[in-house]
Amino acid sequence: VRDKLQIADGDIVEVEPAKFPESLYHIRNKLRGKRLVYEEIFEIIQDAVRGNLSEVELSAFVTALHTQGIDLEEAYNLIVAMVNTGEQLKLEKETIVDKHSIGGIPGDKTTLILVPIIAAAGLTIPKTSSRAITSAAGTADKAEVLMPVDLDIEEMRRVVNETGGCIAWGGALHLAPADDIFVKIEYPLSIDPLMLPSILSKKKAVGANYLVIDIPTGRGSKVKTIGDAELLAKDFIELGKRLKMKIECAITFAEQPLGNTIGPSLEAKEALEILMGEKYVPDVVDKVTHLAGMLLEMVGKNNGRNLALQLLKTGKALEKMREIIYQQGGNSEIKPSDIATGDYGIEIKSEKSGLVQWINNNVLVEIARAAGSPKDKEAGIVLHKKIGERVKAGEILFEIFANKQNKLSRAAKISEESKAYGVGERQEMLIHKVVEPPFHKKTFILER
Amino acid sequence: VRDKLQIADGDIVEVEPAKFPESLYHIRNKLRGKRLVYEEIFEIIQDAVRGNLSEVELSAFVTALHTQGIDLEEAYNLIVAMVNTGEQLKLEKETIVDKHSIGGIPGDKTTLILVPIIAAAGLTIPKTSSRAITSAAGTADKAEVLMPVDLDIEEMRRVVNETGGCIAWGGALHLAPADDIFVKIEYPLSIDPLMLPSILSKKKAVGANYLVIDIPTGRGSKVKTIGDAELLAKDFIELGKRLKMKIECAITFAEQPLGNTIGPSLEAKEALEILMGEKYVPDVVDKVTHLAGMLLEMVGKNNGRNLALQLLKTGKALEKMREIIYQQGGNSEIKPSDIATGDYGIEIKSEKSGLVQWINNNVLVEIARAAGSPKDKEAGIVLHKKIGERVKAGEILFEIFANKQNKLSRAAKISEESKAYGVGERQEMLIHKVVEPPFHKKTFILER
Repeated sequence: VRDKLQIADGDIVEVEPAKFPESLYHIRNKLRGKRLVYEEIFEIIQDAVRGNLSEVELSAFVTALHTQGIDLEEAYNLIVAMVNTGEQLKLEKETIVDKHSIGGIPGDKTTLILVPIIAAAGLTIPKTSSRAITSAAGTADKAEVLMPVDLDIEEMRRVVNETGGCIAWGGALHLAPADDIFVKIEYPLSIDPLMLPSILSKKKAVGANYLVIDIPTGRGSKVKTIGDAELLAKDFIELGKRLKMKIECAITFAEQPLGNTIGPSLEAKEALEILMGEKYVPDVVDKVTHLAGMLLEMVGKNNGRNLALQLLKTGKALEKMREIIYQQGGNSEIKPSDIATGDYGIEIKSEKSGLVQWINNNVLVEIARAAGSPKDKEAGIVLHKKIGERVKAGEILFEIFANKQNKLSRAAKISEESKAYGVGERQEMLIHKVVEPPFHKKTFILER
Repeated sequence: VRDKLQIADGDIVEVEPAKFPESLYHIRNKLRGKRLVYEEIFEIIQDAVRGNLSEVELSAFVTALHTQGIDLEEAYNLIVAMVNTGEQLKLEKETIVDKHSIGGIPGDKTTLILVPIIAAAGLTIPKTSSRAITSAAGTADKAEVLMPVDLDIEEMRRVVNETGGCIAWGGALHLAPADDIFVKIEYPLSIDPLMLPSILSKKKAVGANYLVIDIPTGRGSKVKTIGDAELLAKDFIELGKRLKMKIECAITFAEQPLGNTIGPSLEAKEALEILMGEKYVPDVVDKVTHLAGMLLEMVGKNNGRNLALQLLKTGKALEKMREIIYQQGGNSEIKPSDIATGDYGIEIKSEKSGLVQWINNNVLVEIARAAGSPKDKEAGIVLHKKIGERVKAGEILFEIFANKQNKLSRAAKISEESKAYGVGERQEMLIHKVVEPPFHKKTFILER
């Protein structure tokens, strides 16, 4: 304190207690079940951003939102307050499109292929992404393998103006910074009441007016049933209307990883191979072109999906990706073989013959993280078999890669203890017995 | 009223307003979020059984239980009150076992095979079952194809004493009759807060002290995720401890119908064919022997599943089933060919080639019900393909049977309009787009 206030020895200092933040009254009202109005919400968000609220106070706020719920009006006001307490991109464009996945499916490299397709179609897509929180790799982690992603807002504006698109890390941009504060509270609590406001505030801050939200849906995912996905989609669409943002949602299949790789470098490599036409990974191309097609049709193009496929096949998307890489300061000549993967590897083989009946996404994420992902970019998993494929006893199901032997061993141990793959001629009818009140191990997926 | 009171013309009658039922105060307290104690719960249940509560009052009670929730203590007290306001079986046996499915998987003929296996092992299993409420066929509907099921409590006791088992309809027995009253309220409201008390009160009323609860789990089922199934299992096990009933739960796969048939006669026929060894239906045998094996091991037998399989294979279970049929007053010589199925049929063929990716249980139930099931016992569905099987364009996916042409047409129309089967080389990544706030069509499954 003395350094900060530049006080010399012997100076006289007046001390008075810090003002009790007003927003605490509002938090207490929310705890009692009262709905908050804009001014109250703004005060809370502002105090959070300015550092006037302690972790105890922030925790009470997040908990109150979780237990009391927030209605659409409160969600809208949260978004506006979060936008107004941060930076805004302010592009000089009438049509700005964006895409966001709420997360929950490992191996999702959709953004790395969709952004160049959309920009190659002549549209503006100022994409910001986050790093992994609970997953094996965030989109920012994956993009960083190909190019720098920690742009500031001026740099982001320049890249988008030059190329029509970008893939930037949201963290350095100060767009809706309240979210970054709340995420730190939500993570240890394993609750996420601010998901909708946090996603839409970031999109509003870049000025998006056409948005596709991807809701990966499956038993191991964040959203488990199609019914739940539809309820969430409804909230997104309704909030979009208030924000003057046209939103469509895609409910997508998430019962197994997307594509054949998990981990930043492995996924960046797979995306580059798909862009270069060196590999055809059906589920990745299927998902990317569906989502890109929805965006293209929202702004008035015909046969959106086909157009997206053409931009990918003709190499136009690859060309655009190289422009974006160049403008963000990366090596625009990068080849898949330039991308290193972990030096240590182990093959996990099937114990029996049959069809792959199921894949446990959460176990694969646990394995990839134990192997070092996302911090060790080269660590991760390569899948050799997906659901429905035939496998013989002794055949490889997947490989684990790591930079260090001890991390590889830890990952291999998890693979031994938890089942990542179910193989059999048909689905066993008994999933499991519950004999004693079970210890409830629940995986929490928090991604932005 | 005059008939009931046997009043003659000119008699003098004193009229006074009916006493305001005390239990209304308790219902009102529950509405306000107060927990109810045993005496209050007993009064409500007694008034319900005696007909002292109107539909409005019963509806408020069920709604209060749904919105306020019930804790384990209240659930326990509900069970005890429901048992004490009905008949009890009172067998002179130390060990009484039972099995119950919470429902939600069409084609489940487990009981018809499990009961004779368990009885053939020398155990006592006084099984009561219900008729369909929202499903295509209740176990009582299926069993009735083979034998009378509307036993009274004396007859049930006799059959169990003679054979060790029975498959009786619960409706004529007056075991925990409050449940039959509440079900009529829950059905139009599409809520089921009394599921646990209603199931366990029926089991307590027959004196069961070893119980396996089957929790079919899958996206189209009553319980959609394994996490939810585990939470429910925990409640069952805990309540069992208070009721001095050893309970184990089986979380079973329910993403497609069990076996190849849906509808009372078709299912009874399939069960009989399995018991006679004329057909081997892997998923049915798998499920039956797993559940039977759990029960056998709970009472101290080794290798329960193997024992169950032996009793099935050697024909001991069939022999026991014929005894039960005989004692319940049916034709113990019944053959599968004696069981008629609908005169009118239609084959539903696949439009494309590929693998069966998914089956929509709820659509199949809708089709079977439109065809006349469960009222027309001969109506229903025969599945020719299950998940993971290869099908060619033009090949039959399933057949619909009905007693009347107009019912068959209605069922066929539903099959045309709603997709029961998903066929393709692989799972499409886009499940569906949500462009406008969706109309939420939710299937409610209420079974006992």
